[in-house]
Amino acid sequence: MIRILVVLIAACGLLWAQAADDSSPAASNLPGQQYPRIHPDLRVTFRVSAPQAKTVQVVPGGNDNGLGSGPFDMVRDEKGIWTVTTPPAVPGFHYYWLSVDGFPANDPATYTYFGWNKESSGIEVPDKNLDFYDVKDVPHGDVRARWYYSKTTAAWRRAYVYTPPDYDRDPKARYPVLYLQHGSGESERGWTAQGRANFILDNLIAARKAQPMIIVMENGMVAVKAGAPPPAAQGGAAPRGNAAFEEVVVSDLIPMIDANYRTRPDRMNRAIAGLSMGAGQAVQIGLGHLDKFAYVGSFSGGGIRNFDLKTSYNGVFSDPAAFNKRVPVFWLGAGTAEAARMTSVKASVEAMNKAGIKAVWYEAPGTSHEWQTWRYCLHDFAPRLFRK
Amino acid sequence: MIRILVVLIAACGLLWAQAADDSSPAASNLPGQQYPRIHPDLRVTFRVSAPQAKTVQVVPGGNDNGLGSGPFDMVRDEKGIWTVTTPPAVPGFHYYWLSVDGFPANDPATYTYFGWNKESSGIEVPDKNLDFYDVKDVPHGDVRARWYYSKTTAAWRRAYVYTPPDYDRDPKARYPVLYLQHGSGESERGWTAQGRANFILDNLIAARKAQPMIIVMENGMVAVKAGAPPPAAQGGAAPRGNAAFEEVVVSDLIPMIDANYRTRPDRMNRAIAGLSMGAGQAVQIGLGHLDKFAYVGSFSGGGIRNFDLKTSYNGVFSDPAAFNKRVPVFWLGAGTAEAARMTSVKASVEAMNKAGIKAVWYEAPGTSHEWQTWRYCLHDFAPRLFRK
Repeated sequence: MIRILVVLIAACGLLWAQAADDSSPAASNLPGQQYPRIHPDLRVTFRVSAPQAKTVQVVPGGNDNGLGSGPFDMVRDEKGIWTVTTPPAVPGFHYYWLSVDGFPANDPATYTYFGWNKESSGIEVPDKNLDFYDVKDVPHGDVRARWYYSKTTAAWRRAYVYTPPDYDRDPKARYPVLYLQHGSGESERGWTAQGRANFILDNLIAARKAQPMIIVMENGMVAVKAGAPPPAAQGGAAPRGNAAFEEVVVSDLIPMIDANYRTRPDRMNRAIAGLSMGAGQAVQIGLGHLDKFAYVGSFSGGGIRNFDLKTSYNGVFSDPAAFNKRVPVFWLGAGTAEAARMTSVKASVEAMNKAGIKAVWYEAPGTSHEWQTWRYCLHDFAPRLFRK
Repeated sequence: MIRILVVLIAACGLLWAQAADDSSPAASNLPGQQYPRIHPDLRVTFRVSAPQAKTVQVVPGGNDNGLGSGPFDMVRDEKGIWTVTTPPAVPGFHYYWLSVDGFPANDPATYTYFGWNKESSGIEVPDKNLDFYDVKDVPHGDVRARWYYSKTTAAWRRAYVYTPPDYDRDPKARYPVLYLQHGSGESERGWTAQGRANFILDNLIAARKAQPMIIVMENGMVAVKAGAPPPAAQGGAAPRGNAAFEEVVVSDLIPMIDANYRTRPDRMNRAIAGLSMGAGQAVQIGLGHLDKFAYVGSFSGGGIRNFDLKTSYNGVFSDPAAFNKRVPVFWLGAGTAEAARMTSVKASVEAMNKAGIKAVWYEAPGTSHEWQTWRYCLHDFAPRLFRK
């Protein structure tokens, strides 16, 4: 009986294809959306309706994208439905968009994430061996959107502030603060929406692997004056933009956070880290203000270029023993698939170590210049903080 | 000298056009983006680059859209830049998207907002006579993203929680709570991103026109089981979806809020309101659980259809004096440009009033089935709450 049923189903091409396909909708899809679908071997099938279009492609955001080196040409069926299946993807979050007759359009089936200086589609490819960034049955902190006025930019700004699970339980407890920055073309939304920093910390705190801490996430794409072009329009992390962001952090953001949240407002309870462009900002701001920060993390940053014990960063490293005492954790990491960083940044860390600086080097296994690397980085970095 | 310069500029067509055009980039644009631009008479000029496209249109979201009844055909120049200027728009927030060779694409120059069951572009058209929803130099509350587990849907859910400006100052103060719902195809993000509920309350509280209160915003597009299609796929606010949302609110959300925030957890300190589909949910949940809610607001809802004193909503109105005492504010409002609601809902309020029910009727001046109406509604409704 069952055998006959199987034969009957097999005879029907469409039904069979559906029955035999063990793919499932991506967890990142909008509710009820069946595509994109992820196969057990992590191939991804994208499908959109565009009956009048002449060409439709799936465009992964950037050359390092774990979806592979696109664009992927979609194939049209007789009804104008376009489909393509990628090679097996690297697990993690990947930006992408569609190219519809050359126009960059988002996939209507997914949420958007701020990246590449615009709202971009994104897909979460699961790693069946990892759950440190999943939402779990543990106490959860809030992620707060906080508006404040910045004298530096003469404008209202929005910071995202993660308060740890017990923050509201004990009104007398005070917490250390990690300032955590996104990369070029992203925003204050990145570390929670793409990076899942809140779930990573919820899980670490529940397992008693990290100290409960506040995390502050701001927008590092700062133009000096309101209405002026952001740093991207000036060619990425332009010095001018970085200098403005440094002033925002030091003059506006830290005082606002310390005035409005129950922080421990001393340097030994303040850390700064960031990814890519944000790594450069974290190192610049952190090493430039060691009166304010004791912990510094660089995730897929540029490293310490042309490291020189006496002159780098205004001589902050010149007395290694003093530096090691003053900066309990100076942490640099990258993904093993980031070829350039695996050589140049690693070399700068080795040079520092050789000179007596206790810089930590971390390698995220198999990941590239993407959010999966930075999730790994945060997961390794956060437990090391505020142990002194 | 200056006169000669003006003549020189006038002689140059392009420069002159730029100098003479007194439009300015919409405040809702991405940083640095010059289009869309808003003219002093509130015409809006959209511009995108799509060299390979054959047709490009600006599509306002819905027939009631204050941008006008599109789609608006854009005109291509020799470089593949497409431009169109709309008629003068109604002030407020308007959803829109582009149609690129028939494909619904977002405008790469704007942020996206969850509406129409997807990420949609949006534009803010200013009203020079209104500032009640602007960010001002007053104390600001936080808007918190809160994750919690729902037994009803067997899934983790996210609520947005506005805590008023002084919430963190006095750890003993307790606050009343307004549960505030979005419309069909929207999400828990709507009331702050599109509706600016946080700024509206910040301003009202600073002016001592509204009691400090917590506002809870959840996602009313509830499918009964995790992974099942949302109500939209079942034909809008399907009864099944609304019943599931009612259970989420009563069994999961209210207990979670009262357990984690410093609420006043009694019915006289709990209100519920919503817009459009959410208005129906607010009336259904509010009037259906008067042991839990004392204040009910319907913004552009369906009104009380076939109002009958004895039978409507299981007889809740049958003793008008008792109802008026039990429900200090039963509030219904709509925009004067919402023709259907201005007749049918207004008629249902008049029928209630005639029967002795002290229902409040409010008309938002000149606005339609859009967020500007709902901003007006919240601005009128919130000051009436928690006065007993």
